[in-house]
Order: sequence, then C-alpha cells, then structure tokens
Amino acid sequence: MRNFGLTDLRLVSPRDGWPNPAADTMSAGAFDAGVVVNVHETLQDALEGVTYLIAATARLRGIEKRVTDAVGAAEAAFGRSGGDGKGIAAVMFGGEKAGLPNEAVALSDLLMTYPVDPDFKSLNLAQAVCVFVHEWGKLNAAENPSNFPSQNQVKPLEIPSMPDANPSTRDDVFRMFEHFEFELERAGYFFPPEKTPLMKDNLRSALIRADWTEQEVQTFRGAIKALAIGRGKARVVRED
Amino acid sequence: MRNFGLTDLRLVSPRDGWPNPAADTMSAGAFDAGVVVNVHETLQDALEGVTYLIAATARLRGIEKRVTDAVGAAEAAFGRSGGDGKGIAAVMFGGEKAGLPNEAVALSDLLMTYPVDPDFKSLNLAQAVCVFVHEWGKLNAAENPSNFPSQNQVKPLEIPSMPDANPSTRDDVFRMFEHFEFELERAGYFFPPEKTPLMKDNLRSALIRADWTEQEVQTFRGAIKALAIGRGKARVVRED
Repeated sequence: MRNFGLTDLRLVSPRDGWPNPAADTMSAGAFDAGVVVNVHETLQDALEGVTYLIAATARLRGIEKRVTDAVGAAEAAFGRSGGDGKGIAAVMFGGEKAGLPNEAVALSDLLMTYPVDPDFKSLNLAQAVCVFVHEWGKLNAAENPSNFPSQNQVKPLEIPSMPDANPSTRDDVFRMFEHFEFELERAGYFFPPEKTPLMKDNLRSALIRADWTEQEVQTFRGAIKALAIGRGKARVVRED
Repeated sequence: MRNFGLTDLRLVSPRDGWPNPAADTMSAGAFDAGVVVNVHETLQDALEGVTYLIAATARLRGIEKRVTDAVGAAEAAFGRSGGDGKGIAAVMFGGEKAGLPNEAVALSDLLMTYPVDPDFKSLNLAQAVCVFVHEWGKLNAAENPSNFPSQNQVKPLEIPSMPDANPSTRDDVFRMFEHFEFELERAGYFFPPEKTPLMKDNLRSALIRADWTEQEVQTFRGAIKALAIGRGKARVVRED
C-alpha cells in the first residue's frame, strides 16, 4: 500500500496481535515511511469515518450487490474519497482462508472480484491488496503526473506483431551475443577493460531491439564468422 | 501466478536453494495445482525457448529501451506467446533489494515499470509478480470468458457520484442498523431464530445500497424510534 501511496491501515482483531515483529520485517520500512496502523476490536470501530465501503471477495454470495473488478473498485474509491469533505473510501480484505464474514459483506457498497482461475481462487491477502492498490496507484499517478517522473517514460506501446518467420529464442540470441563478443574481444574492441561490461550491455541492448527471427540470427552469426576469418586473412596478407 | 493461470516458473540460481520448504508453505498448493518450477544455473539457461523478454524494474537505467506499464507488458506478453508457434514470452523479476543486474536488463525487449511512489519504490518481489499476472489474467479472462464465470457478474460501473449532502459515515450507518435490528428483535421480527443472521445480512445489504447521507440516517433513525414507540402505545391500547 505504501508503494502506491496509501497510508491508512486498519486492522480488525488481528489473529497474531499487534505490534507484530514479523509484520514489521515484511513491511520493508513502510511504517517509517508513513503507513499508520490502527487496531480495532470490531469492524464497526474500524469503519469510523468511512463513507464508502468496498469488499474484496472471490466468493460472490447470494446477497444482491453491485460487483466490479479491481479497475472499477479503484475508480469508485478514487471518486468517493479525498479532500473537501469527500469522505473516506475503504477497501476491506478478509482472512486468506475464511475470507470476509457475511455480515461484513452485507455492509459494503460494492463487491470487488478478480479474474482468478475458478480452480485456484484463494489469493494471498497481501497480494489481493497489491492488485487493488496498483489499480488505485494508476489513477493517482494519472491525476498527479508530476509526482511520478518515471511514468513519463511510459509510452503507448504498439503491440509488437509476430514476425512472419519463426522468432528466435532468447538463448539463440544469447549465443549470438557471446559469439559476437568473443570475436570483438579477440579483435581488441573492448577498451579500456573496465568499460567492457557497459560496452557489452549497450551493444546487446541495441541489437536486441531488432526482434530477431531464427533465420536472422543465423545470418548475423555467419557475418561475424566471415569478419573474423576475413580479419585473419587480412593479417596474413599484412604479415606477408 | 497460479491464481491467474500461469504455470511456468524459472528460477535462476535461487539464494535459498530449491526445493525450499518455506516456498512450499507460501505456495498454498500451487505446485500441486500445476505450477512447474525449473531451476537454472544461469539466466541464459533459463531463457531457453523464450522469444520475447520483459524486465520488471523500478530503476529506469540509461540504456535505451522501450518502457511500458503493467498493462502494456501484459498486452505484449499476451500478443507474443501462445500456441501455433507464437513462441514464449517471459517476464523477468529481480531480487527485492538488488533488482535485476544490468546485463539481464540489456537482454530484454521491453522494460516494465509501475507507478510506485518515488520515495518508496522497492516492491516485494511476489507482489511485483502479482501486479503483472493480474493484468495478464484480465486479458486471459477477456479472451476466454467461459472459463471465468464469476467475471460475468462484473458489470460496467457507473462511478457513484458524491451526494450533495454530507455522506454518512459507515459507523453511523452501523449504529442505525443496530438500532433498527434492536427494535425488530423486540418486535419479534426475527423468526425462526437460526435465520436471524441471514435476515439481518439481507436487510443490511438492501439498505446499504441507498448510499445514505448523514441527514437521511437521522431521519431513518427517527422513523424507527417513532415506530417502536408507536407500537408500545398500540400495545397499551390493546392491553386496555
């Protein structure tokens, strides 16, 4: 939750008590970075001030409720909270095994469900939270772009089409790089030595963008080989 | 990954070895449910057969790469993998602290980054994976709707607008429900007793949809009170 800028965590009657040293370790510093935890005896206490409530559940019960996915829930939470008396939206997650009790679900404005595999529904609670907060974080970043400089580098992506020919596998390309670098090494290309890793990364990074087909990898390896042999020949000529 | 239908996990030189009893516990049965783990000494080995590679990173390095978010990465992975010789797309996640080494990033077709708070960037690896697989799972569910019956209940959501008046807090509504149920109890409404919880949940579920303002809660509580007192009076009349 802290990764995506949320800081108000309310625990209802936590099984292992609170504070909890294990949670402290797992939090990776989130408490020092602003996450405030409040522990409540009952759900009612925890809902103090909450004006809009979303319940996460993989079990869509018989009770008639509006159902949405993580995107819809994030939009609803975003629209129903914030400054200027807009209130507080809360998202409620239940224990990993038992889930939320019916009486908690009954209190919700909205059910949120994820497209989990029906044969493997039960999502770890922390991960269920992460899915929601990521959707919320997307809206937050779109609303406040100046706070998220890395997002400026995200460009609309033209989905790379499949090449007509067989795509190369990454291990083929790996071998092609090694071949190329082996010959470059022999040719004294990598200088000074301490810059070798950076020079290799830059070369690989540029070449990988070509999205090689299987055939092209063969062709390029042939070219490397020809250059290497040619250089050998040239040397022989010079040595003459 | 299993929750969203992915089953091919490749580990490169795992710090704590493999098999790992702790991972087994955390997996909640995913290995029995089809997740196949292969351990590799090197990244090159792990990339066998991979034709499209996406690297997850919060640190956008100097190397020139296309950058996308989780949605774009899921679309790219979905478009570049599957049957009919379409190849295998892989998403690569690095250690929580050190992240991916530069030489791994250099091999990627695409960088994936999330809108994390710049002051709290480092996401737990399992959660980073979960964010991606959820986006992938959305595409998968959209492509194969018959496999995801619960998703049929997800309806486009009209974002609930803010009421003009102050919204009620959930604890106010909670107290209103308790008041209502207390009076219904006294009136003998809940019968048979074993159905009480279900009857309460159904009532709460229906009433909560009204999205109460603060004022409306007061009004409704006044109404309950009036009915309760009125009934008292009526009884007195009858007892006369």
